[in-house]
Amino acid sequence: MLNKFCKQPLWECNRTLIKVAQGQEPADLVIRHAKLVSVTTHEILEDTDIAVAAGRVAYVGIAPYTADHCIGENTKVIDAEGQYVAPGFMDGHIHVESSMVGVDEYARAVVPHGTTGIYWDPHELCNVTGLEGVAEVAKVAKSVPLKAMITTPSCVPAVPGFEDTGASVDAAGVEGTMGWDSVVALGEMMNYPGILSCADNAIEEVNATLKAGATPTGHYSVCETDRGLNAYIASGVSSCHESIRSEDIIAKLRLGMYAQIREGSAWQNLHDLAPAVAGGRIDTRLCNLVSDDNHPNTLVSDGHLDRILRMAVREGIDPVTAIQMVTINAATYFQMGTDMGSITPGKCADIVFLEDLKDFHVTRTIIDGEVVAEDGKALFEAGSYQYPEFMTDTMHVAVDITDATFRIPAVNSKGEALAGDSATVRAMVVAPGSTITECALAQAPIKDGQLVADSENDLLKAFVFERHNNTGSFAHGFVKGFGIHGALAQTVAHDAHNLLVVGDNDADMALAARTLVECGGGECAVEDGKILGQVALPVCGLMSPRHVEDVAADVERVEEAWKSMGCTMPSPFMTMALLSLACIPSLRLTNRGLVNTDTFQFEDLVVEG
Amino acid sequence: MLNKFCKQPLWECNRTLIKVAQGQEPADLVIRHAKLVSVTTHEILEDTDIAVAAGRVAYVGIAPYTADHCIGENTKVIDAEGQYVAPGFMDGHIHVESSMVGVDEYARAVVPHGTTGIYWDPHELCNVTGLEGVAEVAKVAKSVPLKAMITTPSCVPAVPGFEDTGASVDAAGVEGTMGWDSVVALGEMMNYPGILSCADNAIEEVNATLKAGATPTGHYSVCETDRGLNAYIASGVSSCHESIRSEDIIAKLRLGMYAQIREGSAWQNLHDLAPAVAGGRIDTRLCNLVSDDNHPNTLVSDGHLDRILRMAVREGIDPVTAIQMVTINAATYFQMGTDMGSITPGKCADIVFLEDLKDFHVTRTIIDGEVVAEDGKALFEAGSYQYPEFMTDTMHVAVDITDATFRIPAVNSKGEALAGDSATVRAMVVAPGSTITECALAQAPIKDGQLVADSENDLLKAFVFERHNNTGSFAHGFVKGFGIHGALAQTVAHDAHNLLVVGDNDADMALAARTLVECGGGECAVEDGKILGQVALPVCGLMSPRHVEDVAADVERVEEAWKSMGCTMPSPFMTMALLSLACIPSLRLTNRGLVNTDTFQFEDLVVEG
Repeated sequence: MLNKFCKQPLWECNRTLIKVAQGQEPADLVIRHAKLVSVTTHEILEDTDIAVAAGRVAYVGIAPYTADHCIGENTKVIDAEGQYVAPGFMDGHIHVESSMVGVDEYARAVVPHGTTGIYWDPHELCNVTGLEGVAEVAKVAKSVPLKAMITTPSCVPAVPGFEDTGASVDAAGVEGTMGWDSVVALGEMMNYPGILSCADNAIEEVNATLKAGATPTGHYSVCETDRGLNAYIASGVSSCHESIRSEDIIAKLRLGMYAQIREGSAWQNLHDLAPAVAGGRIDTRLCNLVSDDNHPNTLVSDGHLDRILRMAVREGIDPVTAIQMVTINAATYFQMGTDMGSITPGKCADIVFLEDLKDFHVTRTIIDGEVVAEDGKALFEAGSYQYPEFMTDTMHVAVDITDATFRIPAVNSKGEALAGDSATVRAMVVAPGSTITECALAQAPIKDGQLVADSENDLLKAFVFERHNNTGSFAHGFVKGFGIHGALAQTVAHDAHNLLVVGDNDADMALAARTLVECGGGECAVEDGKILGQVALPVCGLMSPRHVEDVAADVERVEEAWKSMGCTMPSPFMTMALLSLACIPSLRLTNRGLVNTDTFQFEDLVVEG
Repeated sequence: MLNKFCKQPLWECNRTLIKVAQGQEPADLVIRHAKLVSVTTHEILEDTDIAVAAGRVAYVGIAPYTADHCIGENTKVIDAEGQYVAPGFMDGHIHVESSMVGVDEYARAVVPHGTTGIYWDPHELCNVTGLEGVAEVAKVAKSVPLKAMITTPSCVPAVPGFEDTGASVDAAGVEGTMGWDSVVALGEMMNYPGILSCADNAIEEVNATLKAGATPTGHYSVCETDRGLNAYIASGVSSCHESIRSEDIIAKLRLGMYAQIREGSAWQNLHDLAPAVAGGRIDTRLCNLVSDDNHPNTLVSDGHLDRILRMAVREGIDPVTAIQMVTINAATYFQMGTDMGSITPGKCADIVFLEDLKDFHVTRTIIDGEVVAEDGKALFEAGSYQYPEFMTDTMHVAVDITDATFRIPAVNSKGEALAGDSATVRAMVVAPGSTITECALAQAPIKDGQLVADSENDLLKAFVFERHNNTGSFAHGFVKGFGIHGALAQTVAHDAHNLLVVGDNDADMALAARTLVECGGGECAVEDGKILGQVALPVCGLMSPRHVEDVAADVERVEEAWKSMGCTMPSPFMTMALLSLACIPSLRLTNRGLVNTDTFQFEDLVVEG
């Protein structure tokens, strides 16, 4: 497809490149003495020069050839001094909102780590603001050099009929976005049951994408590699980042699907999946490394794709193979390989300097021929974008939240009071670093006619309040696995991003919830009436307008609060945020109630009989 | 880009595929117990089933899974009995006209050998008939199952200003074809000097292609891998089939160019180039195997891409890697990888059955889910197409050809008679199996005021007559390397396809030339006043309407004539046909005169001083 993410289309500047390559015009930039990571041949090319003009590579001189002839009076010359240069890294599946900052600030965070392009599914903010918000953030993206290639959210709401969101997207909406300059693909088609049952809207979204010559990306989160997977791929959906077993990866590759190995802040699949693609036993051209969701802290402390490359190599994947997975393979997948993905003549000059291929320490990032980051610092500004009110005024909770709001009457499905000291309830069970919840039966104590939490047995109450349309709708359930005392609330609650509250007592839950209503959304940790930590995310209740370092510091305080409250899992807020995501196994809570996401039916909280 | 070469677009049939994959509707075709060549993972998948519906793959069941659930009452079931099945073979660069038959008959010849798609540059016939003829043969192609994907001829004439052709194509013409359903790319941009000098028409042809999101294919026939090659690639031209050295292949792959290894009937580069890509030392995703030009005899006796695969494996290339080069790599290059190139769900069901991966004996070919060839025989008809008169009446030679026409006056550049028994002339020197001619100085005897041939020293006369527009233009020169007595004439004379005659005596030359004028063009061998062999090619003077086997038999007789006349090189007619191709080194003869194709200047025949 035509690449809109370049300084100039090739047809406007190829005359310049031709002249520069032959020394008839000076280059804008010449890089000397680099170890070039050739992703087309899977080689390291020692002592290579690269000449750049009009934002594109004009000439690659492999020793003994040099780019001396491309250097003029005004040519910027960078001596790589033997450092590696690789094509700019591209993340094939990412939700910027998970990093809790705007895409401009996100760029400031990841570009110094070598990221030059992202394939961004902005479905978090789209659930809050609809496609109008997507169009707005596409404008924000244009203010920074990072190539934010948007994949139109396909599943807003994630599972229609099971939750209330701020907006919805249908096939007609998808079709409309396919003409946008910023859109290159359909975002993850999480509604695989819809595809497998030929539900009209799901299929028509895929078809609108296919007709536009764009790429339908996927999400197939079941451990099934036969009929369902075949049917899902036959629909035209061509990638998945939800594999958790080596055999899933192998099956997807054999069936021609791009297998995206995910290593995010909370969902970490690389260790389990690397053996499938390490060792050169199979062709990995259809493999990508993706991050999906990153905490701001992860970006600040560990980086982005450089972090994943480092881990991939530790897990036994050849370093050049790993780099291919975030460069040429990603560009090829999105049908942008003619313009991006390698450092070869005519391609966009998106270039990363690396000290080595082990730690992947990035020293310089170039996008469209401009040095945009050096020594870990972005050389561009971010954060001044003034979001419109429809994106900053999104907390519309019609419930007047008090302690009493969090009482769960001990009644059966007919509303009759339950006898005894406790009742058997269906509880969501979370596990560290996993997107999956189990459904377990637990004993909830009955006190004063209420079902209450049981800290000693790690049984917490959970509430979800609709917050987009003042409907006053909310629902409750129980959750196990967090092991805390106190309460946590957040409006980052996939994918509807309603107000989610978890806790072991009503007063702390109410304080946490009210705090977020007042500050426009975010995260909040409360223990014994005291706010231990808070992250204000006034843009859509998902993002802060501040610098990522400041947001990370706030998040860090909340993470510490989690620990002090008794939870030891990594990135517990991200795990909590999935409690309401009704398209992943097995039991979830939305503002409409408990959802069995294996059968896609509402479940009663209390197990009777 | 959107694939027009399928039974139905995926968006019209994916609901059917989804149902078939899950056993909810029966498949049209099920293949059982196949060894599937997985080109996505580079594996052989033992005991695999494939279900097909709507011309596409609906389901791939890898043991222990089977496609039993896809079989209904009317499903055709083929037991592969352990044979290999591979994706249909695609030739990334081919001129059908070189096989001297129409594309329908060509299909009948190659489909039984496993070819399901060709990327066809019809620039031979385009030089005779213009784009009108290209549109006509695109119609012919639609009558057969072979996917004839047309690349619009870019260089008609091959080298403007140096020859007269029947038609010309400019950038506006190219732009117009980019909307045709049959066109997927720009044909080989042989005018690399034009690209390197930023000649407007050459660049604008590339740019019209880029703007359409199509693929500009190339031809860079110089042994140069630095500034010129970089500049050529930077223009956007992204492939080359003219490599003759391993280092050319490696350089092109490193610079991101698709390196097409050519093994045609006459130009055979596989032996020299295989070492560059064998042994798994480099990534070969940008490699293709192509045939460029095939004699009809080669197709009949040895096959097409199956022949090249066989040779590739003998030359040390891994068989699955070789298959990738004619399947997924070709489809990806032409941006059709979402629809073709592998046997995976959703892709067109273009499938080849193979007895082994050594001899590549093809037993069955399936295109769009239909069995179209079995046991070496095409299951479809060809040859009934009635070409319009502008394609069958193309011999417009204004010269009344007699013996006297072939006299070369022994004069210098000023028209003054040369003294002595001989004169030093510039002679074209041909070599077996090579597209290159050398320029050598030779002594041409002077008899009766004429420069004459010298059979003893293998010095023949060569003439080219303009035959499209009755201009009466013709020119002469000398050639070494054929070693014959008698005369040979042909209208297959790249790329202008004027009437080319070579011989050692005027009478035989005149008879050969007149014979072709009368029969509408073709090939003719004459010795001592007797026609030893003749191939009538009345369609454009390039193609016969007859079956390829009959044409091959005629060609065989002409080949035998070559031998009996003293020439031992393989496919000498193809080597002879390049004598007039003024875009390949080093000395060529067109109807306008001798051309130095290194400097692109006309040369005097006689060397004075």
